[in-house]
Amino acid sequence: MISLESDYTTGAHPEVLKRLMETNGEPLSGYGTDPYCLRAADKIRRAVGREDAEVEFLVGGTQANAVVISAMLADYEGVIAAETGHISSHEAGAIEYTGHEVLTLPQTEGRILPETLRRYLDDFYADANHEHMTFPGMVYLSHPTEYGTLYTKADLQAISEICRSRGIPLFLDGARLGYGLMSRSTDLTLQDIASFCDVFYIGGTKVGALCGEAVVFMNGCRPRHFMTSVKRRGALLAKGRLLGVQFDALFTDDLYFRISRHVIDMAERMKEIFRGEGIPLYIDSPTNQQFIILENRRMQRLGEKVRFSFWEKYDDEHTVIRLAAGWSTTEEDLEELREALRASAVPDRGGQNGQ
Amino acid sequence: MISLESDYTTGAHPEVLKRLMETNGEPLSGYGTDPYCLRAADKIRRAVGREDAEVEFLVGGTQANAVVISAMLADYEGVIAAETGHISSHEAGAIEYTGHEVLTLPQTEGRILPETLRRYLDDFYADANHEHMTFPGMVYLSHPTEYGTLYTKADLQAISEICRSRGIPLFLDGARLGYGLMSRSTDLTLQDIASFCDVFYIGGTKVGALCGEAVVFMNGCRPRHFMTSVKRRGALLAKGRLLGVQFDALFTDDLYFRISRHVIDMAERMKEIFRGEGIPLYIDSPTNQQFIILENRRMQRLGEKVRFSFWEKYDDEHTVIRLAAGWSTTEEDLEELREALRASAVPDRGGQNGQ
Amino acid sequence: MISLESDYTTGAHPEVLKRLMETNGEPLSGYGTDPYCLRAADKIRRAVGREDAEVEFLVGGTQANAVVISAMLADYEGVIAAETGHISSHEAGAIEYTGHEVLTLPQTEGRILPETLRRYLDDFYADANHEHMTFPGMVYLSHPTEYGTLYTKADLQAISEICRSRGIPLFLDGARLGYGLMSRSTDLTLQDIASFCDVFYIGGTKVGALCGEAVVFMNGCRPRHFMTSVKRRGALLAKGRLLGVQFDALFTDDLYFRISRHVIDMAERMKEIFRGEGIPLYIDSPTNQQFIILENRRMQRLGEKVRFSFWEKYDDEHTVIRLAAGWSTTEEDLEELREALRASAVPDRGGQNGQ
Amino acid sequence: MISLESDYTTGAHPEVLKRLMETNGEPLSGYGTDPYCLRAADKIRRAVGREDAEVEFLVGGTQANAVVISAMLADYEGVIAAETGHISSHEAGAIEYTGHEVLTLPQTEGRILPETLRRYLDDFYADANHEHMTFPGMVYLSHPTEYGTLYTKADLQAISEICRSRGIPLFLDGARLGYGLMSRSTDLTLQDIASFCDVFYIGGTKVGALCGEAVVFMNGCRPRHFMTSVKRRGALLAKGRLLGVQFDALFTDDLYFRISRHVIDMAERMKEIFRGEGIPLYIDSPTNQQFIILENRRMQRLGEKVRFSFWEKYDDEHTVIRLAAGWSTTEEDLEELREALRASAVPDRGGQNGQ
Repeated sequence: MISLESDYTTGAHPEVLKRLMETNGEPLSGYGTDPYCLRAADKIRRAVGREDAEVEFLVGGTQANAVVISAMLADYEGVIAAETGHISSHEAGAIEYTGHEVLTLPQTEGRILPETLRRYLDDFYADANHEHMTFPGMVYLSHPTEYGTLYTKADLQAISEICRSRGIPLFLDGARLGYGLMSRSTDLTLQDIASFCDVFYIGGTKVGALCGEAVVFMNGCRPRHFMTSVKRRGALLAKGRLLGVQFDALFTDDLYFRISRHVIDMAERMKEIFRGEGIPLYIDSPTNQQFIILENRRMQRLGEKVRFSFWEKYDDEHTVIRLAAGWSTTEEDLEELREALRASAVPDRGGQNGQ
Repeated sequence: MISLESDYTTGAHPEVLKRLMETNGEPLSGYGTDPYCLRAADKIRRAVGREDAEVEFLVGGTQANAVVISAMLADYEGVIAAETGHISSHEAGAIEYTGHEVLTLPQTEGRILPETLRRYLDDFYADANHEHMTFPGMVYLSHPTEYGTLYTKADLQAISEICRSRGIPLFLDGARLGYGLMSRSTDLTLQDIASFCDVFYIGGTKVGALCGEAVVFMNGCRPRHFMTSVKRRGALLAKGRLLGVQFDALFTDDLYFRISRHVIDMAERMKEIFRGEGIPLYIDSPTNQQFIILENRRMQRLGEKVRFSFWEKYDDEHTVIRLAAGWSTTEEDLEELREALRASAVPDRGGQNGQ
Repeated sequence: MISLESDYTTGAHPEVLKRLMETNGEPLSGYGTDPYCLRAADKIRRAVGREDAEVEFLVGGTQANAVVISAMLADYEGVIAAETGHISSHEAGAIEYTGHEVLTLPQTEGRILPETLRRYLDDFYADANHEHMTFPGMVYLSHPTEYGTLYTKADLQAISEICRSRGIPLFLDGARLGYGLMSRSTDLTLQDIASFCDVFYIGGTKVGALCGEAVVFMNGCRPRHFMTSVKRRGALLAKGRLLGVQFDALFTDDLYFRISRHVIDMAERMKEIFRGEGIPLYIDSPTNQQFIILENRRMQRLGEKVRFSFWEKYDDEHTVIRLAAGWSTTEEDLEELREALRASAVPDRGGQNGQ
Repeated sequence: MISLESDYTTGAHPEVLKRLMETNGEPLSGYGTDPYCLRAADKIRRAVGREDAEVEFLVGGTQANAVVISAMLADYEGVIAAETGHISSHEAGAIEYTGHEVLTLPQTEGRILPETLRRYLDDFYADANHEHMTFPGMVYLSHPTEYGTLYTKADLQAISEICRSRGIPLFLDGARLGYGLMSRSTDLTLQDIASFCDVFYIGGTKVGALCGEAVVFMNGCRPRHFMTSVKRRGALLAKGRLLGVQFDALFTDDLYFRISRHVIDMAERMKEIFRGEGIPLYIDSPTNQQFIILENRRMQRLGEKVRFSFWEKYDDEHTVIRLAAGWSTTEEDLEELREALRASAVPDRGGQNGQ
């Protein structure tokens, strides 16, 4: 059984795990004040190319979204997100739990178009009754999006300019940021992201860590007494070293980018296999999540050898499934995937031929 | 420099770390549904001696307190705690963040006396205006308390009976539960705790894990759709295995208790050293946190060789400090502590003699 | 200048005000425990036709929505509403402020179709990942809707049955309930509403009171210790008599229905005037809010003599405006409206003729 | 039966009610934008003696406390209050409902002593772990306090200076402010209060209005988009005129002060009666609430003719009760009180004599 159902099925990348072992016995101060956290923050600042970036480590993605958004919004504000955004539908109301509304916009393959955002903001401020409505106080994007797609540099810049003209911060959820950066069809660098966004995070959980997201605040956006805000949300890790050591490892010798490139290679290989087997892509995703359309019986047969995620019903006879590559995905896994795909096709045709 | 400032300065106990390494490559399902979480829950159920116990894993102590309390309280209820309870003062308002009041009671060495609780509840319900006040909806104890002290079986039973007579659950914060159970002067077993409490947690972070607390719900108290409540509080770990594997290791071959016993041995040794050196105890703590009173200059000299925690000012010339043993504390550390304590005393007298 | 911009521009209906004056000097107990509150509740129970109905008075509509919804939802639940529902967009995030998500559904003239609701609930429970999403825990309807439209008996019954089959309460926002009940084209009685809904409120603010909404809980749905929940939301009025006396007046000699019928008569008269003047209706509303489409310059000229509400842009040259009848609207007002409408049409044509 | 159990048992002062009637038919804009709200704000600005004061009207006291405090605190902050403060114990957790902690200080007759506050703040910032605790972000006082007592000018100034040196706002709950200002033993004027506080409110509900509190923000402290924050807390009144007209009346021809002076006269008369009858005062209150100690049987007999509030048990045989004067209290009421007090004393002595 090969496991392609998500990018968080295996533990930590061996280089990350090795550092956890090597540093395990050192007595270190808690709550993110240890030298590994400081060093990791430093390395991330260098990678980002901005001395003034402020880096904080949190445990998981939903947590990072809820903590950052709720700590940055004013009382009367909500956060704008695509209706397919992770915070809009798949975090069990984590943003609303903090007392704030998610203001959803229509999307295109998971992306908010700059024009959609501009019109929404124009309409809001044009409405004579807008003081009776939630003020848009932040824009949330995910990159890659929930569909594996990416913003172009032009679009991210346009969105950034709209946000700045309205005086609201731009927040980018980078739970899978490495795969966006190492995609073969992106023109956005980490430095670009740091210059267009006011806050973003570099996902660790889905890119080789056991857990951990590195939140990067730009332009002085880090909320005052952020540690206290983190603590009162139950999100402050006593042994903060667990995050510091892992991110220190990920940003040593470009490990974060090496992992990401490998995963992209595997995902592109996967795509070739789909094409080779004549399997239609639901979306032509340039990152590590691949979405294909399978005839239902074939999907069931494939499920006997490969673990994947059900995505959505396509029509009465077809289903969209997701297969994701991760740091531990190997060429052998993909060879097995190809075999399984072939095998899943044969019996049926055979059966038809037999009639 | 020896490190005795807390019980969470080093990483995971080697046996825990070993299991993380051994299982690292296995592809496992996320969010606590993996076999290690299930197995760990099973082992904890066995240790607790109750088939019907329901076990959930969370990442940290403040998180466990906030998630459990807020998910169990009714809208109009608050939680009763000692005024020195962790939730009352050292969690940055994490309970209030969830919308609920902490109703504080006077304490004795960190403990709530049954009589204090009974009187509080009697007075509340006797007050004709109590519908204008927060209803007491849960009792929170910590065991060991913030002062390292312990409840007796008689007192825990009395508190439990008061709670049951009022129909409110009893919650025990066991961030350092192992040290309570292995203390040389306790008459409370894990089974007793499970029978007196409605919910409690077995702390991992401070007893040999990298992170993690095992919440145990008794008597059907586990809130419905608890996973969703955990998720929306940003507390659901994607790689839940990180918690499952660690607790599986801690509850294999009694590791949790072996660690705890070692730490208690180290703490008792520490106490002997204090006595040997004529250093007064602030509280005669039966667990792993020791509190001593030091003359201020001596404290400063000690600080050059030993890391400890400032606890509180004793008087203008003396300070209470805390030294804590942990899984990685060794006899050699304590020998060094003795040396450092002696050395801290000499120079001053020498200086005085020299005048 | 005649005022038709909303149904809350004038004070209380004279019969309501008279009772406030007559009872003003009586010393009464506070917080809704006075005899007028009790008597009003009794009269409402009779009007509703159910002995077991429990009635509570709140000050305003947004408050009633937020208090009722947040007090009834479980932690992991959100409330379903039409995307045009008042709670979805025009209450500044009042529901989210209480920590709960509004789950929005597409609408038809402000109504949720039973089929839309059924499909949403089926899809939710069919989704393997639904524990990562907000559970639908209540259905919110407004009747009349924000567009002045009404549910039919068949549709309300169908929605009620869907809710009951899923075990979730049905909540009806009746801020303008009187106008729904007295509409000339409704087949729904107050008794029907009480039998189909689990909780609803009878709006006072927009039907002749200075303020006040009577919340009616059916089927034992009144949350436990509701008064305490109301208090902690800052919604408990010290001089509860202000609500009790007004609702006692409104439910004496059918005043609530007499007011409503008068307002409906005025609204129907308004509609005749629009038809007489050849002005297109945007929606053929059967209640007190009328929506018409006006050419922009005509709208501006009308605005010199009549106060109305801007509703939305229709196209570049036309606008949808709302005119609402209220308890103080008179035939003379409508005669003036007709004059103003005519006058608003003439000058323009005159100008054109002159060229 | 005379009613002295509180100062909110009767409706509005006749001059207030008269203005509600006179203005009832005028069509006015909603949500506090009507000319009466504007005019009342103007008059209050003049009474306060500061052009830059910003005035907002809210419906009730608990609401005013919760809205103001939660809108002004930063995420990581709580509010300091006396342990007997209204927000600390008698608002059912309304502050905690907004996510913020009430940091309670010991009190003296309901007052916080400047020295207590200074020491608390010094200790907080001296604590090395204070980032793990709720930051003190505001000081809440009530004036008169819950015990009817008053701050001196010197003490209020000292508290104000402590707040300013720490950069946190000072908030004064003036639910009964009129009685503080008209007390015969105060040296604090309304202008003093405006200069020492950053925000305070002038209570209407307990000083002659049907409902309503006028919140006064000084020094630019009014939160941005306050109306939206009010709305999303369910506290925005549609017919804002109800508050505007009442406060316009209260601040016309010094009505607010005339009412207050009358009430103080009645309270002082009450005190004379107590002294005349040899009844011990529990606190020598200089405002409208009087607290006396009565032997329990006497209290019961008194209760047959006079309504009062139970305050607290004094000892096994005596009880503290509260009697409050209000705008509708008359000399005749107090004559009856004297009779009732006498009568309550006689039978018992008579009974004893008879034996």
